[in-house]
Amino acid sequence: MSKTPYLTFDLDTPGMSTGHLVVPKGDDCEAISLPVFSLNKGEGPRLLVTGGNHGNELEGPIVARRLVDWLPKVQTCGRVIIVPMLNLPAVQAWSQDSPIDGLNLNRVFPGRADGSVTERIADAVSRLLLPMADTVFDLHSFGPTWDCPPSVVTHPIGDVDLMAKTLRMAEAFKLPVTLLWEHPDTKGMFDTWVHSQGKVFVCAEFGGGTVNAEALAIYESGLRNGLIALGLVDGKAECPTFRQRKASKTLETLLSDELKSPARGIFEPRCSVLDEVSQGGLIGVIYPVDSLSADAIDIRAPTTSIVCAVKSGIHVEVNQKVAFLARPLKP
Amino acid sequence: MSKTPYLTFDLDTPGMSTGHLVVPKGDDCEAISLPVFSLNKGEGPRLLVTGGNHGNELEGPIVARRLVDWLPKVQTCGRVIIVPMLNLPAVQAWSQDSPIDGLNLNRVFPGRADGSVTERIADAVSRLLLPMADTVFDLHSFGPTWDCPPSVVTHPIGDVDLMAKTLRMAEAFKLPVTLLWEHPDTKGMFDTWVHSQGKVFVCAEFGGGTVNAEALAIYESGLRNGLIALGLVDGKAECPTFRQRKASKTLETLLSDELKSPARGIFEPRCSVLDEVSQGGLIGVIYPVDSLSADAIDIRAPTTSIVCAVKSGIHVEVNQKVAFLARPLKP
Repeated sequence: MSKTPYLTFDLDTPGMSTGHLVVPKGDDCEAISLPVFSLNKGEGPRLLVTGGNHGNELEGPIVARRLVDWLPKVQTCGRVIIVPMLNLPAVQAWSQDSPIDGLNLNRVFPGRADGSVTERIADAVSRLLLPMADTVFDLHSFGPTWDCPPSVVTHPIGDVDLMAKTLRMAEAFKLPVTLLWEHPDTKGMFDTWVHSQGKVFVCAEFGGGTVNAEALAIYESGLRNGLIALGLVDGKAECPTFRQRKASKTLETLLSDELKSPARGIFEPRCSVLDEVSQGGLIGVIYPVDSLSADAIDIRAPTTSIVCAVKSGIHVEVNQKVAFLARPLKP
Repeated sequence: MSKTPYLTFDLDTPGMSTGHLVVPKGDDCEAISLPVFSLNKGEGPRLLVTGGNHGNELEGPIVARRLVDWLPKVQTCGRVIIVPMLNLPAVQAWSQDSPIDGLNLNRVFPGRADGSVTERIADAVSRLLLPMADTVFDLHSFGPTWDCPPSVVTHPIGDVDLMAKTLRMAEAFKLPVTLLWEHPDTKGMFDTWVHSQGKVFVCAEFGGGTVNAEALAIYESGLRNGLIALGLVDGKAECPTFRQRKASKTLETLLSDELKSPARGIFEPRCSVLDEVSQGGLIGVIYPVDSLSADAIDIRAPTTSIVCAVKSGIHVEVNQKVAFLARPLKP
């Protein structure tokens, strides 16, 4: 058995191909075959679409799988590679991180050929798929315990030109929110690795919570808009309807916009995503679980903001994140 | 330390009291103190409200906790006991079942004094709280991986009078759905135990998926309607708005209405809750995860039906439930 990752087909084959990216076996598990789709229409943009980077964010795998069905009818040029389930063991376990080595795939890029399985997946993708693409759409969704509007996200990038290009790509999805997200922990992210190579990478954060037919329709239309903007597909982009509105905002969230729980207890959201809150506005409350005579603890907005994401009602620990606020990005 | 459960206060105390139901220690863990609220306004209906029977259904604990805040201002007579977090260890672990003994609290009633912790919780509730109530509202929500409309549910009851009384109580919540649910596995349910004593028990199944502010507002208004109908609170019941509609239906779901996955793979919902589907209408598809050239497998409605609950997009095993269909209950 090979000790290096390989593809079961040649990505240079013209037209449509399906096969697998084989991640070699290691001490922790047997080889894993990740299904891969390729549609090579020659000259033009080269796009890699990935889902299932986090295994409990199923919008990505589903929308990527739908794309496999309709792309052959509409792609006019260029090359698209689709991997709906990057971290297949995590998708099967409905777990953000790998059930095998406990690692978060989105913190181990570019991976290691001699590492544990999650590192070997990152290595296989970095080595065999990434060189074939100039743009990456990585389909996330904030996870099942959050409520957030369908968004396309990028983190701040040092290279000014790449930052501008990436923001333009994100805005082209025309989802309710385009978000520039200052993140405390970008080391090993797929984003960071792709950006370091001067390529465009956008991360769709497709809503969180229940994965239902309405949510999937919005995500799919956002992805279609992205493909149109890249020039891979003909058509006119359209803003999807979210909460009875068709609108698209570009927001910025800073480290100081992360609201954390001041205490252990049950978090109750008291605001909704995209609400505009004043300084001191109520975001949620924490109910201590040891006594019903203890007062609920208010969590308030430190500044006038737009609610970008809010935690589902759930038990939280001290310092656990419960909301992300944001404001319009200054041009 | 006591080997039998006890309350830290006397439920016969007039007015408002808070304290704990102490579930004794056992071989598996220390004693657990479940917060309890009581409001005793003398003669009148006697109601027990419980949340957190399943630990990953947080609507119940939150709405029950809100009730603790507003009930003292509005209760006019009778007695109400509220236990927001019945299975406290499961609530803290965001897990349906107990993280200590792995048991589903809703399958072990009436419990055992010498059993494992989940059985001891059921025993404490059965022994000390249930005798003080004639009606029980147990606040569930179908769990995080389902989408269902806010509903009040009862299972079929042999006693015709109790069945009629229970259905009337369920309908009084005026939630979008009142559901008579033929369930394959009612042994040990809290419902079954309470019904066996001739008492009214309704189970609110408050939506599933994301626990957000909009969902909680609907649940709270349903619960308020229930309290008004019981005569504990003055006021006029109002149908909450759900998906831009104010309407309330009484439905029946039979064992044959449970749709199961014919294969292993990722389930994609293709219908929405409360959709009316024709015989053969598409409910969802299963995408096999081993290959992208394998066709998706359709899951279709065996008869003309209303969609009562549909699984979130998620990886499922063969024979795992993916939808519950229903139809109007014949009077």
